[in-house]
Amino acid sequence: MPEPAAPAMTAVLTAVLTEGPLSRVGLARRLGLSQAAVTKAARPLIDLGYLEELAATERTGPGAGRPASPLSIRPDREFFLGVKITADELIGVVCDLTSRVRASAHRPLAGRDVDHVLAELGRLVGDLLDGPGDHRARTRRLGLAISGDVDRATGLVRYSPFLHWHDVPLRELAEQTTGLTVVVENDVKALTTAEHWFGEGVGAESFALVTVGTGIGCGLVVNGRLVAGVHGVAGEIGHIGVDAGGPACHCGGRGCVEAIAGTDAIVERARQRTGRPELTLDGAVALARSGDPRAAAVFAEAGDAIGCGIAAVANLVGPARIVVSGEGLAAYDLFEPSIRTGFERQAFGAAATCPLSIRPLPFEEWARGAATVGIQSFVAS
Amino acid sequence: MPEPAAPAMTAVLTAVLTEGPLSRVGLARRLGLSQAAVTKAARPLIDLGYLEELAATERTGPGAGRPASPLSIRPDREFFLGVKITADELIGVVCDLTSRVRASAHRPLAGRDVDHVLAELGRLVGDLLDGPGDHRARTRRLGLAISGDVDRATGLVRYSPFLHWHDVPLRELAEQTTGLTVVVENDVKALTTAEHWFGEGVGAESFALVTVGTGIGCGLVVNGRLVAGVHGVAGEIGHIGVDAGGPACHCGGRGCVEAIAGTDAIVERARQRTGRPELTLDGAVALARSGDPRAAAVFAEAGDAIGCGIAAVANLVGPARIVVSGEGLAAYDLFEPSIRTGFERQAFGAAATCPLSIRPLPFEEWARGAATVGIQSFVAS
Repeated sequence: MPEPAAPAMTAVLTAVLTEGPLSRVGLARRLGLSQAAVTKAARPLIDLGYLEELAATERTGPGAGRPASPLSIRPDREFFLGVKITADELIGVVCDLTSRVRASAHRPLAGRDVDHVLAELGRLVGDLLDGPGDHRARTRRLGLAISGDVDRATGLVRYSPFLHWHDVPLRELAEQTTGLTVVVENDVKALTTAEHWFGEGVGAESFALVTVGTGIGCGLVVNGRLVAGVHGVAGEIGHIGVDAGGPACHCGGRGCVEAIAGTDAIVERARQRTGRPELTLDGAVALARSGDPRAAAVFAEAGDAIGCGIAAVANLVGPARIVVSGEGLAAYDLFEPSIRTGFERQAFGAAATCPLSIRPLPFEEWARGAATVGIQSFVAS
Repeated sequence: MPEPAAPAMTAVLTAVLTEGPLSRVGLARRLGLSQAAVTKAARPLIDLGYLEELAATERTGPGAGRPASPLSIRPDREFFLGVKITADELIGVVCDLTSRVRASAHRPLAGRDVDHVLAELGRLVGDLLDGPGDHRARTRRLGLAISGDVDRATGLVRYSPFLHWHDVPLRELAEQTTGLTVVVENDVKALTTAEHWFGEGVGAESFALVTVGTGIGCGLVVNGRLVAGVHGVAGEIGHIGVDAGGPACHCGGRGCVEAIAGTDAIVERARQRTGRPELTLDGAVALARSGDPRAAAVFAEAGDAIGCGIAAVANLVGPARIVVSGEGLAAYDLFEPSIRTGFERQAFGAAATCPLSIRPLPFEEWARGAATVGIQSFVAS
């Protein structure tokens, strides 16, 4: 028997992983392949233990033929590590093949230099693989998620503003440190990939994920694929100008969403409005929740700016749905109403029917996004 | 010999049409097909006269094999009609297979009701097909371009604001009137298709066309395909909110690009600023060109708003290039500088390197877009 084509194996594994269990007939229809091609592609995946046949189910109704034995994933066949690198800590998870979190751990970072981060990464990986669950034997891959300008193909971190890193060959360094196969991705893109494969974006031809926090980011899936941007920029919702008379942004723009709704902007604006230069983010949140109208207005304006930015996404690319998330949404209650009113005002016609899911996001989810990128690179191989 | 697969024929014809002449070897490489599959798919296209083999050219250098005979399109094999329907007139063209205009004609519209427009369409088609060039014998298809909400799959015009049409089954009616096979498309999408296949967007994975006029529209190609919008809305750059303190828009939004830079908005704002309620668009243009600072500021603000909207496109989807066009750019000289400064200010990082082509667009180009949609539907068949 000739070797099955790698693209067919990847297609079968991806479909069962993200939409399974699926019968061979269903897979053939879904993928535009012959049933023989599906059977041939599935064989080695079953032999290697990634797929299994479920008990045959009787099919009824007109056209029912032989009972179908759906193919299902075996989640425990292999585990994947995912680590989100922030300026203050590393957050790591062990996920199974379906991106379900099996274990998690954190390590604070005392510094941001590359050597220190790598040493802590080595310890975190050890904690995760040698902790409960005995994952080491079946773990070969590690996904790293980091904010900034990342070249996934080479694993180079071109620029990470929060870490002050320039041109760090992170994949190579992390492979030397951990002995695992490493893939590095921008954190927002990693999170978008997780939602596209295992979250609210499953099966969507187009889909957007907006993250709210220190920065305001956006991952976009259009025509079934993540949008990368020909010039290396995409999803920069934070730098859409929504207020021509608004504040200057660090990017050189004016009235950018991030200059109104990023964490630093919120703190700065709350300090100005209340005349309390010592105010922290937590203090501003507490003040707004206690009913202070000046502090509350700062969050309402931030939500409105985010809503306008999201409406721009809906008006331009018309995604099936938009998820709004991120650590900034810890103050969810203060943001949500004005995100929705801003969106509804600026979304054009039927674009206003695009469902918005607004929900806080634990940091662990970012690490799960990193693990999903590892799963994806495994499936593509 | 078995029937060649229709998808392979479509792929070969599309590649030769938009990127040709190409050798069979080049086509196989370009399309990821075997050389045998390319040869099989090309055979009927040669037999039917759509493709021809050019004289063999010697190949030189390492790896040179047999001389290659590139396949080339025969532009005269079939002609396509394209008509743009505006509120005031019909603009029609005859194009060859490569979308080169061979003849054109106009007909003014005395009214906007469906029957009147169809009767005039019948006359225009007669003028075009029976005029010089003897195109009737080799013309079977007509593309219609119309602004508004159009369902290309069914040929239904759901809503056309300028014509006050609701749910008009235009394809069916136009086929009865003309006896041709008709395809109906939104005008901005038709123009984008023409640029993607035969203009500045050839070969681009992503590409944007922005049209400036009564409305401000945008056609987007992302990951190689036109973006349609899951909820039926896409490319609505005119309703991105760029000025939170700006004027109310007819859509219910605030500070939309169109509320600042659409033709009606420009006239209205020029009247207010100059205190001349009788001012027309031509009058406002003349005044601005004569150096009146109030009129010039209206155009500069309009250009800045358009530039901000275009920057939002570049920041979100990162297209390879952006073409800015439309009948509104008759006052090109007044718009261009501030379109560029608005874009450069709001484009984030490397997004500012996205090339902008700003150029006026004769109405005939819209009709050519309509013809291109006809060519595209022929090729897909």
